[in-house]
Amino acid sequence: MTATGLIGDGLDTPFLAVDVDALDRNLTRMAGVAQTRGLALRPHVKTHKCPEIARRQVGHGAAGLTVATVGEAEIFAASGFADLFIAYPIWAAGARAARLRAVAEQASLRVGVDSAEAAQVLARAVAGTDVEAVVEIDSGHHRSGVQPGRAAEVATAAARAGLRVSGVFTFPGHSYGPGRREQAAADEAAALAGAAATLRKAGLDVEVVSGGSTPSAAIADGVALTEIRPGVYVFNDAQQAELGSCSWSDIALTAVSTVVSGAGRRVVLDAGSKVLGADQPAWATGGGRLPDHPGARIVALSEHHATVVLPEDGGVLQRGDVVRVAPNHVCSAVNLADELVVLAQGIPVDRWPVAARNANT
Amino acid sequence: MTATGLIGDGLDTPFLAVDVDALDRNLTRMAGVAQTRGLALRPHVKTHKCPEIARRQVGHGAAGLTVATVGEAEIFAASGFADLFIAYPIWAAGARAARLRAVAEQASLRVGVDSAEAAQVLARAVAGTDVEAVVEIDSGHHRSGVQPGRAAEVATAAARAGLRVSGVFTFPGHSYGPGRREQAAADEAAALAGAAATLRKAGLDVEVVSGGSTPSAAIADGVALTEIRPGVYVFNDAQQAELGSCSWSDIALTAVSTVVSGAGRRVVLDAGSKVLGADQPAWATGGGRLPDHPGARIVALSEHHATVVLPEDGGVLQRGDVVRVAPNHVCSAVNLADELVVLAQGIPVDRWPVAARNANT
Repeated sequence: MTATGLIGDGLDTPFLAVDVDALDRNLTRMAGVAQTRGLALRPHVKTHKCPEIARRQVGHGAAGLTVATVGEAEIFAASGFADLFIAYPIWAAGARAARLRAVAEQASLRVGVDSAEAAQVLARAVAGTDVEAVVEIDSGHHRSGVQPGRAAEVATAAARAGLRVSGVFTFPGHSYGPGRREQAAADEAAALAGAAATLRKAGLDVEVVSGGSTPSAAIADGVALTEIRPGVYVFNDAQQAELGSCSWSDIALTAVSTVVSGAGRRVVLDAGSKVLGADQPAWATGGGRLPDHPGARIVALSEHHATVVLPEDGGVLQRGDVVRVAPNHVCSAVNLADELVVLAQGIPVDRWPVAARNANT
Repeated sequence: MTATGLIGDGLDTPFLAVDVDALDRNLTRMAGVAQTRGLALRPHVKTHKCPEIARRQVGHGAAGLTVATVGEAEIFAASGFADLFIAYPIWAAGARAARLRAVAEQASLRVGVDSAEAAQVLARAVAGTDVEAVVEIDSGHHRSGVQPGRAAEVATAAARAGLRVSGVFTFPGHSYGPGRREQAAADEAAALAGAAATLRKAGLDVEVVSGGSTPSAAIADGVALTEIRPGVYVFNDAQQAELGSCSWSDIALTAVSTVVSGAGRRVVLDAGSKVLGADQPAWATGGGRLPDHPGARIVALSEHHATVVLPEDGGVLQRGDVVRVAPNHVCSAVNLADELVVLAQGIPVDRWPVAARNANT
């Protein structure tokens, strides 16, 4: 798909566009992965924040949704999604306590805990509701979560505080590096299996053993795990393509942008970090990629400028040309936009509100 | 100021807070710099996107406002600001042409050009209006803009296309690096002086010689330039403090956040890149800074997690503690928020809508 025709539709660049055919292929592929491996698919909706896409995920067999914040839970519960997992170590103090209770009245709700203290605060907040707790495990990303050997300690404290504990989860975020997803998937399986074993040994039932990032989902351990929570796969992005977890044609969301300065092999686009996000891991080739110009590199990115260098055999661009840019990290790009322009065969057919944009609390 | 009392006000973290006293000190200081150097101050409002703050800037003597996009111009024109400069090489095609004309009916409008082609497109778009053009010069940042020696060529083409050309401008973005602002300010002055000279030689009047970034504004050349366009100075951020262009007490905007995981010298906060932005230049010490814990470092930042390590003599933090985080790049953080919570002496007194958030087109 090229985007040059879009300008005639009264759409000024830059804007985010979703290719529905690529989106549907991505949804189908991940649903197949989950089914083949015998895993429940509970996609992380922080990537798209759109009820329209969540409905398609449920249509593809998702068992429920994963969210990152109480705010996202509120929006998806209000949109009618009945089974939500806040995969985050929520500190359920202040106004958040009443907000959690209100969500629990609308939907089946699972919340992460990674300490006895947080479990006690959560138990007070949701007393009298059906909220269940799952213990977050650190499988190697070293962010939140406890070591597998300490899972039972947290689970027991949560149960003692009055919470129903249903299992364990982890985010193998160290899969986000070249050549690291096999090790991350192995770490994930080992950490979750070890943590689940300590819970069972402490006399607790373990219904939920939840893992899975987009890079590692396709090789997630179908025996150790019960479910996966990939998010980015719906759209993919330059990071996933550079990591090898998707091909360039699997990228379903791009920023449509215009060449505003320069001409030839060095140009400046109007899609900058306020549209693409500024995520740029050290191993990335630049500030994003141009799927239709595979040799091009974004050598500098500022708020409203992407400086693009094309290779000698990569053609040229002229002022006014319209090109597609894949952000490095699509979750960040989507969170900057109020709506996504939906394209079918390159033709705008709909707009989807990013309903949970900025739902950070 | 500590933020611990805020939770009692029903505000769940994370949220962006403006300290009005620090804001007013920053406004006063930059107004003084401009006055001392005999330069017009035309602050870049892309940093705050708030009409409330722009009104304070005008109250401190700003001669007009700088914006980055037609969308920002629309919002500030609609808010009653009568003198706007879109300091960007606008490609005035598509719907943007009519939008520019509509802004020109509400406000005095100056637009950047850096090529004959863009000038011709702009001239067609704004024919019959009072829009004036200024030529963008590359003073060393190597983004958009022409070399000083080519300024007259673009200016002449613009004039021939029917535009009123009023001068030259540059953004010395290479001032954003440790120890680089003196050289950047010198480059800025030399490039602008050279470009202005070529315009005069070509028989064109030069009323506007515009430069200035926050790092370089305080040492901007008061002879070569007629105006400066700093933006970040209203709030400052971790980048400016680390570059030495402000002190930690000059930081007027922070993300108020809660410790959700860990305890002691390594903790995780709930303010991640979806609140702080992901900007992190290679020379930055981390993903942001904690002004009240100067030795602390944000060693990892993901969407809803900031992993903080405190030094041995830097105290400890506990789950539930509320701390302030200065983003690396405040423009990116503000563009993620719908509103800013205004604090006077740590007490919430108002909320300012980020009216021009997402005004990227």
